[in-house]
Amino acid sequence: MIDASGWFSEVYPHHGSAFSLKLKAKLHEEQTPFQKIEIYDTEWFGKLMIIDGCTMVSDRDNFLYHEMMTHPVLYTHPDPKRVWVIGGGDCGSLKEVLKHPEVHQAIQIEIDERVTRLAEIHFPDLCSSNQDERAELLFIDGIQWVRDAADQSVDVIIVDSTDPVGPAEGLFNEAFYRDCLRCLGPNGILVQQSESPLFHADLMAAMHATMRKAGFTNTRSFLFPQCLYPSGWWSGTMASQSALTGFREADAAGRPFETAYYNTEIHQAAFATPVFLRKRFADL
Amino acid sequence: MIDASGWFSEVYPHHGSAFSLKLKAKLHEEQTPFQKIEIYDTEWFGKLMIIDGCTMVSDRDNFLYHEMMTHPVLYTHPDPKRVWVIGGGDCGSLKEVLKHPEVHQAIQIEIDERVTRLAEIHFPDLCSSNQDERAELLFIDGIQWVRDAADQSVDVIIVDSTDPVGPAEGLFNEAFYRDCLRCLGPNGILVQQSESPLFHADLMAAMHATMRKAGFTNTRSFLFPQCLYPSGWWSGTMASQSALTGFREADAAGRPFETAYYNTEIHQAAFATPVFLRKRFADL
Repeated sequence: MIDASGWFSEVYPHHGSAFSLKLKAKLHEEQTPFQKIEIYDTEWFGKLMIIDGCTMVSDRDNFLYHEMMTHPVLYTHPDPKRVWVIGGGDCGSLKEVLKHPEVHQAIQIEIDERVTRLAEIHFPDLCSSNQDERAELLFIDGIQWVRDAADQSVDVIIVDSTDPVGPAEGLFNEAFYRDCLRCLGPNGILVQQSESPLFHADLMAAMHATMRKAGFTNTRSFLFPQCLYPSGWWSGTMASQSALTGFREADAAGRPFETAYYNTEIHQAAFATPVFLRKRFADL
Repeated sequence: MIDASGWFSEVYPHHGSAFSLKLKAKLHEEQTPFQKIEIYDTEWFGKLMIIDGCTMVSDRDNFLYHEMMTHPVLYTHPDPKRVWVIGGGDCGSLKEVLKHPEVHQAIQIEIDERVTRLAEIHFPDLCSSNQDERAELLFIDGIQWVRDAADQSVDVIIVDSTDPVGPAEGLFNEAFYRDCLRCLGPNGILVQQSESPLFHADLMAAMHATMRKAGFTNTRSFLFPQCLYPSGWWSGTMASQSALTGFREADAAGRPFETAYYNTEIHQAAFATPVFLRKRFADL
């Protein structure tokens, strides 16, 4: 909601709180077949994309999310040649994936082409690698994509979706995870954004349980700050048949690209599990 | 500010953003000689204390701040017997300090007695160790306290203050740090809350520089989530003549008390420095 003095607020009704951003100008608004997309210029956070009333991405702090949804998983996999990004229409995750020379093919599967077309206009930096010859942008249903894809056809699947309501709901269930597992090659890893440790620890625990029920033998969450998302603290969760404890530390230390948040210390730190979360995960 | 539908908002004017909490009831309001204190019951965060319009402490998420302002520094010092908490009137830091059996004396020096008296009523859990025979509660100016205190009379100084404006301003300057350094014994450590890495990286860098100018040879920041504070991401900064790399890991692993956030993994993780901060600190 936007009030009379130009503040956008995202209310977290189950957690009695809200985060607000001061807007400078509305740049775009449209209802797509899937969702309502709004683009604003803000006072301090740069450009801002809102989908169905939830903040998705800002110029100022997206580096945290995009770096953490990509580099930890890519430096955990021993040889990530083929990568899918499910969702991720702003292309920020795709851009980070393509920084890795070991990646031969990166396919982004976004259901709503308008997210990408608007990102190309309003977030050109996030889309600056879309012309990379290793990149392929598909605008189809990610659930259907993994259902139809060949066995062992990918090394890393990154699920960069909205919250588990609306179009993204089907990305958080056993059938989807089972399809992902079938598509993953040896040592393959699925990583998915898994909401706030402070607000959604139950969802995180349920996600681990569902991933294991789908056949993944190892699951592991990692944490990072994300000012724009509920509670300012966010998580990703990896699932694999391999141990998820491998870390190509020398490769990460010698990474041939710039980051703003990620380095080898941050990689290892992100996997530290607070006492209260360890208790939630104890029965898994 | 509180709107007509019972939401309290703290606006971060320099960062075009705000965090809001849904209130259930106002429990208290008073103007002390130092500041305005308000206490509310909230919908999800439990009890909330606001000082001069800034959120100070809530039942729900204070464990993050209080554990991180105490256990990392106490398990970095080789033998912390004598501890001062400057500020910290809600007594949450004092309570965490007193969990350490190696601490023989813990003195809280809070300028505004009303903060503590109201915490005793509204945050009884945070004040549950105030009767510990090792604890002493003083209601005097912390700046004057360190100016008057004897050389080498303390092992750890914890500066648990409000933001560097108003009554707390004098806790962020060279003269204060110089007094702290004089009061600290061998291996002594000063630790101070140092605001948000995302919003206040300049302040953090300035704090490191000022601490070094005051004579501390080593300074080191650590990071943790804190939903209630600006950007949801917060920091503390340690200063010492010793290396600050010691960690009594076995003692921390075998700690004889409960925590909700802190453990040995979290201790080490908190010191990981993101690339953008490392660049800010590079010239120190």
